Amino acid sequence: RPCRSGPRRRRGVKVRAEGKLSDLTSVVESQQFDRGMLEDLFEVTKEMERIVEDGAECSLLAGKVMGTLFYEPSTRTRLSFETAMCRLGGKVVSTENAREFSSVAKGETLEDTVRTLEQYVDVIVLRHFQAGSARIAADAASVPLISAGDGPGQHPTQALLDIYTIQKEIGRIDETKVALVGDLANGRTARSLAYVLSKFDKVKLYFVAPDVVRINQDIKDHLTKNGCEWEEVNDLATVAAEVDVLYQTRIQKERFGDKPEDYEKAQGKYIVDKKLVTSMKKGAVVLHPLPRVGEITPEVDSDPRAAYFRQAKNGLYIRMALLTTLLKGN
Amino acid sequence: RPCRSGPRRRRGVKVRAEGKLSDLTSVVESQQFDRGMLEDLFEVTKEMERIVEDGAECSLLAGKVMGTLFYEPSTRTRLSFETAMCRLGGKVVSTENAREFSSVAKGETLEDTVRTLEQYVDVIVLRHFQAGSARIAADAASVPLISAGDGPGQHPTQALLDIYTIQKEIGRIDETKVALVGDLANGRTARSLAYVLSKFDKVKLYFVAPDVVRINQDIKDHLTKNGCEWEEVNDLATVAAEVDVLYQTRIQKERFGDKPEDYEKAQGKYIVDKKLVTSMKKGAVVLHPLPRVGEITPEVDSDPRAAYFRQAKNGLYIRMALLTTLLKGN
Amino acid sequence: RPCRSGPRRRRGVKVRAEGKLSDLTSVVESQQFDRGMLEDLFEVTKEMERIVEDGAECSLLAGKVMGTLFYEPSTRTRLSFETAMCRLGGKVVSTENAREFSSVAKGETLEDTVRTLEQYVDVIVLRHFQAGSARIAADAASVPLISAGDGPGQHPTQALLDIYTIQKEIGRIDETKVALVGDLANGRTARSLAYVLSKFDKVKLYFVAPDVVRINQDIKDHLTKNGCEWEEVNDLATVAAEVDVLYQTRIQKERFGDKPEDYEKAQGKYIVDKKLVTSMKKGAVVLHPLPRVGEITPEVDSDPRAAYFRQAKNGLYIRMALLTTLLKGN
Repeated sequence: RPCRSGPRRRRGVKVRAEGKLSDLTSVVESQQFDRGMLEDLFEVTKEMERIVEDGAECSLLAGKVMGTLFYEPSTRTRLSFETAMCRLGGKVVSTENAREFSSVAKGETLEDTVRTLEQYVDVIVLRHFQAGSARIAADAASVPLISAGDGPGQHPTQALLDIYTIQKEIGRIDETKVALVGDLANGRTARSLAYVLSKFDKVKLYFVAPDVVRINQDIKDHLTKNGCEWEEVNDLATVAAEVDVLYQTRIQKERFGDKPEDYEKAQGKYIVDKKLVTSMKKGAVVLHPLPRVGEITPEVDSDPRAAYFRQAKNGLYIRMALLTTLLKGN
Repeated sequence: RPCRSGPRRRRGVKVRAEGKLSDLTSVVESQQFDRGMLEDLFEVTKEMERIVEDGAECSLLAGKVMGTLFYEPSTRTRLSFETAMCRLGGKVVSTENAREFSSVAKGETLEDTVRTLEQYVDVIVLRHFQAGSARIAADAASVPLISAGDGPGQHPTQALLDIYTIQKEIGRIDETKVALVGDLANGRTARSLAYVLSKFDKVKLYFVAPDVVRINQDIKDHLTKNGCEWEEVNDLATVAAEVDVLYQTRIQKERFGDKPEDYEKAQGKYIVDKKLVTSMKKGAVVLHPLPRVGEITPEVDSDPRAAYFRQAKNGLYIRMALLTTLLKGN
Repeated sequence: RPCRSGPRRRRGVKVRAEGKLSDLTSVVESQQFDRGMLEDLFEVTKEMERIVEDGAECSLLAGKVMGTLFYEPSTRTRLSFETAMCRLGGKVVSTENAREFSSVAKGETLEDTVRTLEQYVDVIVLRHFQAGSARIAADAASVPLISAGDGPGQHPTQALLDIYTIQKEIGRIDETKVALVGDLANGRTARSLAYVLSKFDKVKLYFVAPDVVRINQDIKDHLTKNGCEWEEVNDLATVAAEVDVLYQTRIQKERFGDKPEDYEKAQGKYIVDKKLVTSMKKGAVVLHPLPRVGEITPEVDSDPRAAYFRQAKNGLYIRMALLTTLLKGN
């Protein structure tokens, strides 16, 4: 059982980097956002919350049209983006199975598809099945482009909504203890969150994963290099009592194609149930990118620490903030 | 040939029940609506007609977003709901094949899907393939939910638009004679309409169906219990001359999988053609939930008694009225 | 190698026919538009350009709803139409696989589908897989209908945007030399463009096609009859240096089912590359209906003569102009 510690963390708050939110032209990977940009984005996001709570029609992006170009289905993410645009007064044109339907079938390149779509719309939201596609598309586009996930690559808006949820629920990101639980090898959300957390100060990460889906070495190296403390542990109960954030993820059945018994074993190993949640600190929260299939039992839902549906709502706010930033020049 | 009469009908108008339209929080089955609620709903619906006829942009639901969650295709119903929302100034996000695309494939429960979607939208329209799903979803939802049909279960907005059409075309529902024709065993629209009609006074129902798809006993019992007169008859021509409403339905080929010859026989038995319609009373109407495949001949379309396309338009008005009621608190 | 000339062209400008743009009730085929109507349509289209460039919210079609009824996928065309409606302040309800999903599967006629949809929406955009469907649907409809292509039949809005692009890029249509290149047998865009060009004066057409997909005799006859000069040529390089417009088209692989080697040969025969474009006149343009798969090399894109993405944008403007004309009575 490996249990290595990262190096001692640096003194003081990490300095604000050069990036400015108002310079943002596309959202392709979470690394684009340094601490200062995240803090600015959070300010815009809070304003978005006020707009939604207000309930009145908003015309911030009136006259703007968003094109949703999904090469693989992701209904949840698509509807979140589309609602975000609607709530800002903008309009949406959409395709949810571009892979099968579009000119791709005739051999068109992604660059050409993007260059055509940008003749019509003011911003493109792209979901693709190949890692790296978002970057290729953003480079080709002359309108802002937001990645809604590119296969095993990145899903930057998920990472942004996750970190925003921690800020909102815990009141800070610095000096938090976060347990990442479940499929840490394949789940890109846990990986991306770890990257983003490393930009903050005195964060401690716990990795809790079944043996077959442990966190990859590259992330551990990255954290160590960035002065972020981390630990791999086997006992979820002990960690749960200590952390501010327990980030549970789904074991992805589709990764265990020929070994269903391995899946069953991994799936059942770390279940967040009422007993576990009750052992957590009072102000702590349970997060999950959803969908869940049993790794958090339904009885947990009524506990105030169950924050995963509030987290989903934050996805709406974050996407509104990104659309506003890109289309209004913030 | 069975031909039983219901009991004598009660004296006087059926009394108005307790339900109030303004208390409506979701629409799951037509039984939710008592006579008083229906009458109030019809008032709202008439107002909706005026809005559409006016043609100007309406902002009654400006700032509201409807989420269309269809687990099986029903283009007609979906477009009717979506147009209803558009015509009220609201916006729509939509998925028309949630079954294949959404997180259902990953094992998510319907409750979780609804609890996620409600983070984004103000009202959910659900179409599902399993009877009872609409109730489960409405119970899980904290935003209003309207069922657009749940498999062999209910299709409440169809029943509402049917009864509204009778009121509008005939000028009353009390004291009408209504023939339900076609597949009365499987067609949920005929069943639902019979239930709703039983809330009114001195209605007489005629059931005209091929032997293999006769009306079920439970409905006959319900009508009898509620003092609604009914009769099962074989001769459409005689009934046609007598009724105010001839409600034709499609024989559903998909129910005769292994016996296509039975389908052909059933399909051809009761055709509404020009000759039959000409024999009907002057103010009578022919209704049909559509689509039709031959059970009403196209030559009938030009007869003023052919009301099925006007009936489709009433679907738009009724759905506008329900959305307005649920989102404005009426 | 055939190389026949058309008859001498008539003197003077072709006279303006009777058709008036304001009388337009549906758009089914490009022949509906005579020269005068095209000129009027171009004026409306220029106004649409100003609306889009202005960027502010437009309310020209506020309160109107467009129904997109696509029986086969064509994401590009659909998104162009839907954005056009959005940019005019209208709203959209949409189905992109009506063939599989709608009541067609239950045996409903196209006429009935149209008559139902028109109860909801103010204008229908139809894409169908059968030639002639657009005419059938338009005849059945009591609301305006625009064809977005009917199988091997017509794709009138493509022809309109092509001719508009020539007017805009070259500054005139009369007295232009246009080379149509590629699959002239199956590609309906080249055929339609030839028809429309024949309405103008002193146009000269060059047909440059691999032997297996040469232009059909009916078009040559039509041009000859209408006094439009044309020539079939084999050498693209010579023609390129001479024309104002080089209209390249994709060789459609799907037409060579059993003979892939024929496809490869045809596909590779006429490639528009940097060298070829450099040999063209300074003010000339390369057009393409898109998607392309290699018949124009990507290096050409940066040449100012590469006008195919601007052409795609004109599709947005033309569709806005048609929607405005049909819904505002111009």
